[in-house]
Amino acid sequence: MPAECRCGRPCFYFRRQSGEALCKRCFTKSIERTAFKTIKREGLFTRDDRIMIALSGGKDSIALAHILSKLERRYGTELFAVTIDEGVQGYREEGIRIANEVARRLELQHYTFTFKDAYGYTLEEICAIAKSKGIQLLGCSFCGILRRRLLNDLALKLGATKVATGHNLDDEAQTFLINLFRGDVERIGRAGAMPLVAREGFIPRVKPLRYIPEKEIAVYVYAKGYDLYQRECPYVRASLRDEIRDLLNRLEADHPGTKNSIVNVSDSLSEMLEEKILSSKMEHCSICGAPSSRKICRACEVFSLLGIGKSAV
Amino acid sequence: MPAECRCGRPCFYFRRQSGEALCKRCFTKSIERTAFKTIKREGLFTRDDRIMIALSGGKDSIALAHILSKLERRYGTELFAVTIDEGVQGYREEGIRIANEVARRLELQHYTFTFKDAYGYTLEEICAIAKSKGIQLLGCSFCGILRRRLLNDLALKLGATKVATGHNLDDEAQTFLINLFRGDVERIGRAGAMPLVAREGFIPRVKPLRYIPEKEIAVYVYAKGYDLYQRECPYVRASLRDEIRDLLNRLEADHPGTKNSIVNVSDSLSEMLEEKILSSKMEHCSICGAPSSRKICRACEVFSLLGIGKSAV
Repeated sequence: MPAECRCGRPCFYFRRQSGEALCKRCFTKSIERTAFKTIKREGLFTRDDRIMIALSGGKDSIALAHILSKLERRYGTELFAVTIDEGVQGYREEGIRIANEVARRLELQHYTFTFKDAYGYTLEEICAIAKSKGIQLLGCSFCGILRRRLLNDLALKLGATKVATGHNLDDEAQTFLINLFRGDVERIGRAGAMPLVAREGFIPRVKPLRYIPEKEIAVYVYAKGYDLYQRECPYVRASLRDEIRDLLNRLEADHPGTKNSIVNVSDSLSEMLEEKILSSKMEHCSICGAPSSRKICRACEVFSLLGIGKSAV
Repeated sequence: MPAECRCGRPCFYFRRQSGEALCKRCFTKSIERTAFKTIKREGLFTRDDRIMIALSGGKDSIALAHILSKLERRYGTELFAVTIDEGVQGYREEGIRIANEVARRLELQHYTFTFKDAYGYTLEEICAIAKSKGIQLLGCSFCGILRRRLLNDLALKLGATKVATGHNLDDEAQTFLINLFRGDVERIGRAGAMPLVAREGFIPRVKPLRYIPEKEIAVYVYAKGYDLYQRECPYVRASLRDEIRDLLNRLEADHPGTKNSIVNVSDSLSEMLEEKILSSKMEHCSICGAPSSRKICRACEVFSLLGIGKSAV
């Protein structure tokens, strides 16, 4: 392994796939370059966009906020961050504290909203209701559905034109495999750095870190001197995603580039299928009126399954 | 587990995915029904077809020959079988003996051709040349390329209008994942029960067993009283396909239906991408003139890599 970066500085990170030794500066620059290239190539933002960052306080969202705040300084792009407090005592407080610090450091306008205010229940209370009704919580699906729904409602309320999320290469490769193993061809076609176009009531979500491996994002956040939020949510269950994470890590170790290949295939398919997907119906939930490809949106499905109220944002 | 089939006969096979207990008769009927449904739904054959069965002597090709010979008896479809002797002493003879017996039992016209006659070298000699030149044989790729090429040449020579192969559900799900992990979106789009249409010099290959799990094919062949060819080719190397086979078997055990989901996604994608793929170039190899999507076909690539002569069929 070379001990020095091309620029002569000592090696900080060895990128196995390309065989590059990178100093701290060249490493962080390369991460930012990848994100900016993605933004440019995929046309994720226009100068008139008002971008809402989904800032959980985890490493991916910290990297995203740090990189996008450069965009703000360079181009004057309007940017603000939203943190959602799902309400899990002894776990979520640390993430929220970190999110607050990140927003302060980056001088980002920052809002925090709670599940309790939006839905009338914390995630803990929702899990307790599910348990009392004998409903098996599958992985983190409830929480994910309710969080995505709240993010869209907040983006509408706060006048955002794009929602940026910190999904990384690993997340995207995992999601492709999950959709594949479940036979969900529609979701495969809808993936992409900018998966869905704006439609009435729906703010497009963009993923500028989609081509950056999870590990490199963690190293980037560490290099930039941020706290890393290490605890795991007590509601996380062993899920198909965990199995697939392990599988992909094994494949990547033996065949470097596998995760990239999967995401590249996903991109090519989305591009080729774009017309078919765009021409497919985007309807409105018959209960709450939110845009959905289903008759009843997933959030309302959760509410009715649990017998609780609906979004009050 | 129920001890009896719905028809009252004793259980011969328990199909885990559907929870069905099946007697021998209902099991074999269900396998044949799946193959016939595939043939009908995908329009694999017309009554005027002259079908060449690629009969290696392995379980998949035995099941294929047995099932297609029913088609011959019912509809008078023209059918014949071809066995390719790649030339691997102490291994291939058993498969060829079984292929001969199968053809005799099913009263199929049967031809055997050798790599030696077609290419001037047995697979053993080709492997020795590769070894002497320090060329790493990747899995079974050389053998596969040369076999597929010879099958097409023989189909042309013997006046076949379709080549039927015994690819099963496991093969197809594995191939999808291999193409995905390699980022080969073109091959993903070209998969399907009838992956390629007829073009000048190219006889379409069809896969009537594409939706039948490997395990059920083995049980079917056993139920029909055929010898199973158990030896493994000495040239088989631990390959990506082996890893993926294990992975899929683990996934299928934990999440029954995964292999089917993958093949269903593969089908939907092929269907949606059909126009794009059909409009893509099918050129001719600049060395041998055979149809190929590449400037130099894979067979000629192998020949020139090894410095040996080309197909003489």
